[in-house]
Amino acid sequence: MSVDSSSLGPSLRLSSRMAGVRSSAIRDLLTFTARPEVISLAGGLPAVELVPRGRIAQAARRALGDPHSVQYGETSGWAPLRETVASRESEAVGRRVAPAEVVVTHGSQQALSLLAQVLLDPGDTVVVEEPGYTGALQVFRAAQAAVVPVALDANGMDTAVLEQALREGLRPKVVHTVSNFHNPRGVVLSAQRREHLASLADRYGFWIIEDDPYGELWFDAPPPAPVATHSDRVLRLSSGSKTVAPALRIGWLHGDRRVCEAVELLKQGADLCGSSLTQRIATELLDDRTWLDSHLAAIRGAYSARSHALVGALESVFGERISHTPVFGGMFCWIEFADGCDATSLLARAIEHDVAYVPGGAFGVADAHSHAARLCFATYGGEVLVEGVNRLRQAYDAHIRTPWSVTGH
Amino acid sequence: MSVDSSSLGPSLRLSSRMAGVRSSAIRDLLTFTARPEVISLAGGLPAVELVPRGRIAQAARRALGDPHSVQYGETSGWAPLRETVASRESEAVGRRVAPAEVVVTHGSQQALSLLAQVLLDPGDTVVVEEPGYTGALQVFRAAQAAVVPVALDANGMDTAVLEQALREGLRPKVVHTVSNFHNPRGVVLSAQRREHLASLADRYGFWIIEDDPYGELWFDAPPPAPVATHSDRVLRLSSGSKTVAPALRIGWLHGDRRVCEAVELLKQGADLCGSSLTQRIATELLDDRTWLDSHLAAIRGAYSARSHALVGALESVFGERISHTPVFGGMFCWIEFADGCDATSLLARAIEHDVAYVPGGAFGVADAHSHAARLCFATYGGEVLVEGVNRLRQAYDAHIRTPWSVTGH
Repeated sequence: MSVDSSSLGPSLRLSSRMAGVRSSAIRDLLTFTARPEVISLAGGLPAVELVPRGRIAQAARRALGDPHSVQYGETSGWAPLRETVASRESEAVGRRVAPAEVVVTHGSQQALSLLAQVLLDPGDTVVVEEPGYTGALQVFRAAQAAVVPVALDANGMDTAVLEQALREGLRPKVVHTVSNFHNPRGVVLSAQRREHLASLADRYGFWIIEDDPYGELWFDAPPPAPVATHSDRVLRLSSGSKTVAPALRIGWLHGDRRVCEAVELLKQGADLCGSSLTQRIATELLDDRTWLDSHLAAIRGAYSARSHALVGALESVFGERISHTPVFGGMFCWIEFADGCDATSLLARAIEHDVAYVPGGAFGVADAHSHAARLCFATYGGEVLVEGVNRLRQAYDAHIRTPWSVTGH
Repeated sequence: MSVDSSSLGPSLRLSSRMAGVRSSAIRDLLTFTARPEVISLAGGLPAVELVPRGRIAQAARRALGDPHSVQYGETSGWAPLRETVASRESEAVGRRVAPAEVVVTHGSQQALSLLAQVLLDPGDTVVVEEPGYTGALQVFRAAQAAVVPVALDANGMDTAVLEQALREGLRPKVVHTVSNFHNPRGVVLSAQRREHLASLADRYGFWIIEDDPYGELWFDAPPPAPVATHSDRVLRLSSGSKTVAPALRIGWLHGDRRVCEAVELLKQGADLCGSSLTQRIATELLDDRTWLDSHLAAIRGAYSARSHALVGALESVFGERISHTPVFGGMFCWIEFADGCDATSLLARAIEHDVAYVPGGAFGVADAHSHAARLCFATYGGEVLVEGVNRLRQAYDAHIRTPWSVTGH
């Protein structure tokens, strides 16, 4: 979706920025799959039954005992929450992180959006992963950056390809990576490539945005230490949306103090401050380490079981017709159709069969990944996932029989 | 405050946008007045004891009974909240407003920020009030707009001055007005000028941003019908922050559907969506009209009494030394020192006497209002306000005796 503002007339026209801004394909899809009978593997929605509503209600009641919980708050986030985040980040990166190196944002998407404004002038170069996170592509395009894709493989962004491009003169201002359980590919950036990427940032002088909302959702073993362990050119984003609750809208940025100050300045104009209430709730939950550890263990167990259910069904129902990236954590499974079946045309048929996913093309900078798709296994239990795969097979068979009628839709 | 990023080196430099972005003077002041013994008339903070914490706790508990209250939500806002806002706006402007003409934002500041990005290209002209809302000045400067001030008087923005400038060739893309109980001046745009401003927008083709967070806070009589009553070129912003609670971070935009669509598109990249939880809480409170009416009556009564306490103290303690704009609602009283006392130098002395305010210069586009100040009467009860005025007089007397030593600080 883009906005048709041609009827507004020249003096009321929208800004030129709007010409490059389009709705994410995932968003538009979700509007088509809102029917309750559709099994939507399209959204990146955490399992709502695993969100600790009772614990949140308790924390809300406690927070509301304090009058300041309903007042405006500090732009950079409630001080105790910044301390909590700083302490978590200190453990993750193996050095002391100060609260002044943390900004709490309205989800990590806001951190990404403010960072793009803080760091990028129109025409600046940004390296993204191919395929990449659509919310990042959207933000970088809105900043009128030149977006350069670097391919992913089973070990994450191919940093040898990046290095070659740097040697040939590429000078990015920013390199964006979803280092853990990649959206949409599911892969993990290897330890060796993390070090390599950090050394390239130091050598060539660019910022790394390490976008890490899924790192806590590992199944059998935690991912390697963050890229931020290896360089102070890293701006690390994470979030409570996948571990505690999306509706608290708590994300954060950790990194260079001057960048944090600049993000805070822009956040003043962007929305004054976050919610004192939801920041207090998040703080209580993140500070209760005993509870949080068992809560995370429950999510990891459930998501692991769901990923096995999905992958098992894909293997038994589709056999050699599809391949998939192994799943070690996160929320997504990336599949590719061996016969080159076009996932966008198949989607129309799939929705007729009450199942949905995101076609790979939605994540591409270039016009690629047409025979791939992202399936989210987090939202539903195993039985529903199996039923979803069965419906997908029916849609696939119907599509194979009469592809042209579908293409002609 | 601006960010000193000179030490970052050329390849890591911040965007050129950041050169024009500075912290609002109010924000920086607040950091100096955080000592509990300071009576700060500087912040625009609602009375926290009037925020209905018990009612919010009830609504939170009820909302959390529904699993969807903790999930991601629609970018444009929870549908029932958009309906509630559309219904309130329909009553206010006297015609039917559709939910599709409403976007719920993270406070009305987010609506202002997204509107600036949707409407303005660098170099576009924006008319603001002089003095004006600092949060608007900040956003328009970040959008690299050319900001043109138009003076206010006791009846709000002087639309005759605006018309003259338009006749002489001024072609603004946007005119921003705080139509009710102006921040910082406290004045109300007269009914006649509302019509005049709307007719100018229609004749010359510009958008009006009618920024109205204080309209419900009238004392003896409601303000005239909104500017939006008179033209569909009006983008109307309001908020639950001053009536329900700042911490819910619920604001909204009502206006042209194409602009709403564009704001929604940018909001996807800005923060994905608002909080499903606080939007549900706000909906319950705004929908309970019986409760809301009595709650608003209580706020109006308390703020009216506080304004009388402040103004009475100013008159009895300062006499002819200051003049003030009559207060009919809102949260602010604007004073001017008859002897031309410089309010910025006085502030240093005032903080020594444990009282604070915002000097008029903070609100000026040009270097003006140096002998004026904004005092907020909403935050404290009458006795504290009187004590604050007494301290201010002591500071004033000390300043008058030895102004140069203070200037030399």
